[in-house]
Amino acid sequence: MELLVVGTVAYDSVKTPFGERKGVLGGSAAFCAMAASYFTDVAIVAVVGEDFADEDRRLLESHQIDLSALQTVNGAKSFHWQGEYGEDMNDARTIRTDLNVLMDFDPVVPEAFRSAPYLFLANIDPKAQLKVLDQLDSPRLVAADTMNFWIENSREDLMRVLPRIDVLVINEAEARQLSGEGNLFSAARSLLSCGPAMLVIKRGEYGVLKITADSIFAAPSFPLEKVFDPTGAGDSFAGGFMGYISSKRNQAPETMRRAAIMGSVMASYNVEDFSMNRLASLSREDIEARYNAFRRLTEFGDL
Amino acid sequence: MELLVVGTVAYDSVKTPFGERKGVLGGSAAFCAMAASYFTDVAIVAVVGEDFADEDRRLLESHQIDLSALQTVNGAKSFHWQGEYGEDMNDARTIRTDLNVLMDFDPVVPEAFRSAPYLFLANIDPKAQLKVLDQLDSPRLVAADTMNFWIENSREDLMRVLPRIDVLVINEAEARQLSGEGNLFSAARSLLSCGPAMLVIKRGEYGVLKITADSIFAAPSFPLEKVFDPTGAGDSFAGGFMGYISSKRNQAPETMRRAAIMGSVMASYNVEDFSMNRLASLSREDIEARYNAFRRLTEFGDL
Repeated sequence: MELLVVGTVAYDSVKTPFGERKGVLGGSAAFCAMAASYFTDVAIVAVVGEDFADEDRRLLESHQIDLSALQTVNGAKSFHWQGEYGEDMNDARTIRTDLNVLMDFDPVVPEAFRSAPYLFLANIDPKAQLKVLDQLDSPRLVAADTMNFWIENSREDLMRVLPRIDVLVINEAEARQLSGEGNLFSAARSLLSCGPAMLVIKRGEYGVLKITADSIFAAPSFPLEKVFDPTGAGDSFAGGFMGYISSKRNQAPETMRRAAIMGSVMASYNVEDFSMNRLASLSREDIEARYNAFRRLTEFGDL
Repeated sequence: MELLVVGTVAYDSVKTPFGERKGVLGGSAAFCAMAASYFTDVAIVAVVGEDFADEDRRLLESHQIDLSALQTVNGAKSFHWQGEYGEDMNDARTIRTDLNVLMDFDPVVPEAFRSAPYLFLANIDPKAQLKVLDQLDSPRLVAADTMNFWIENSREDLMRVLPRIDVLVINEAEARQLSGEGNLFSAARSLLSCGPAMLVIKRGEYGVLKITADSIFAAPSFPLEKVFDPTGAGDSFAGGFMGYISSKRNQAPETMRRAAIMGSVMASYNVEDFSMNRLASLSREDIEARYNAFRRLTEFGDL
């Protein structure tokens, strides 16, 4: 097992201008692991309720995702998120959040996974992220995501996560919110001083920025006339990013740039359908074709 | 003379979080011509009042910008724009617009300029853009800009401009507004069907998209911790874009992509100071250095 992902496995009820789906598979760890599964061996540390469907378990397992650390709580329900997207597909409006099994989630990393070389702390309570960090031996690379809810309500815990990770994956508004800086590059400098050596700033339809102390890389998002459902775009980005790095087993600058493109590839496929319908049905050829499309989208050559 | 620019030469009063300037040189044609002057021979077709200062005339002329078609109206004042930018530097708030000499502007293209191979119709009343088009022989490439004011108040004239141009340079919100399409790529398809073979969509801090019927090119903006004054960014983009194309004398796809980067280079320098203070003091080395910085900002190589 190369990549350990801690986060949520959830049921989502989503409404977009293109339709509506109720109680479909989602969650930060599920999207991330599915995207990463095309590149490397992945295991999930998460919790579900007794309502978790066999077919969803089988879908994840059919992608060789290791579910041996997926806890099931009897007599309780899985985490449920209900959200809606308007014409501007960049921001979700949360209608309802039922934490359910997440309330008492105590992540346990099995002995066999403690030496995992790559760790992704997907969006979840920073307390859970810290507990996982405490159980790992010494991963080669740790990345983490978060969201506005934790910035507002668990800032202290979150600030304890930052010095222990290598890469912070965060969206643009959250980078400003967490740093208190209006200019994005000032925000990035401030966040880099809190611990991580690298920031990946997600900008929705505007792509991503990868920022270190001495370099910036900018990647656009893939041009799509129809974004069916943005849910999980950030998580599938992270899955492509971490999966690609795990498969290369190095963190050279060119690996990290290509990883950011691979993340963008996976996110672009994910938003083409509801839940992970598209993300779960890709071929190696699909992925390479879109990577090459990103090349054509961005290249301009020397003067 | 290679590139003819019609538009405004104005005095701007601008307030940004970094300071305030009153009555400084601005206007769509002035910013565009200044940026283009680093690449090609430029002439301006515009109008000013008797308040137009000798030092501003000398500044433009010191960049070999031909002012022989710059009309001066005695007893009248130059166009004056007053605007303010908040923390979000992407959008200007117009405080006041004094059209002054623009009210009765009747653009006259001197005989010597009628065979100009490249024409840029900078942001101005589409009636004036049409009058200039009527006076030109058969330019190799015509590009035009516009703004929300004309989309709202002169839509019919604007729609008569579109079939007569090759490239429409427009910002993201205006592309949506003019086409009535929420998705940007649907908006682009709709606008391409109105005439121009190419769209250049300006997205402020998110860069630009260059779109034709069968290709899309995405360029980021240059990462800057301090944007002193965004005024003229779009016009200096257009100047770098058109100036570079004029200097290459071809419209091959790779020329057009590099032209979009060169536009971004000029826009990025322009916003580093008020008015055209930075834009007017560049060296060839500055321009090449930033072009190369754009290469490093975006390149990621093959899989």
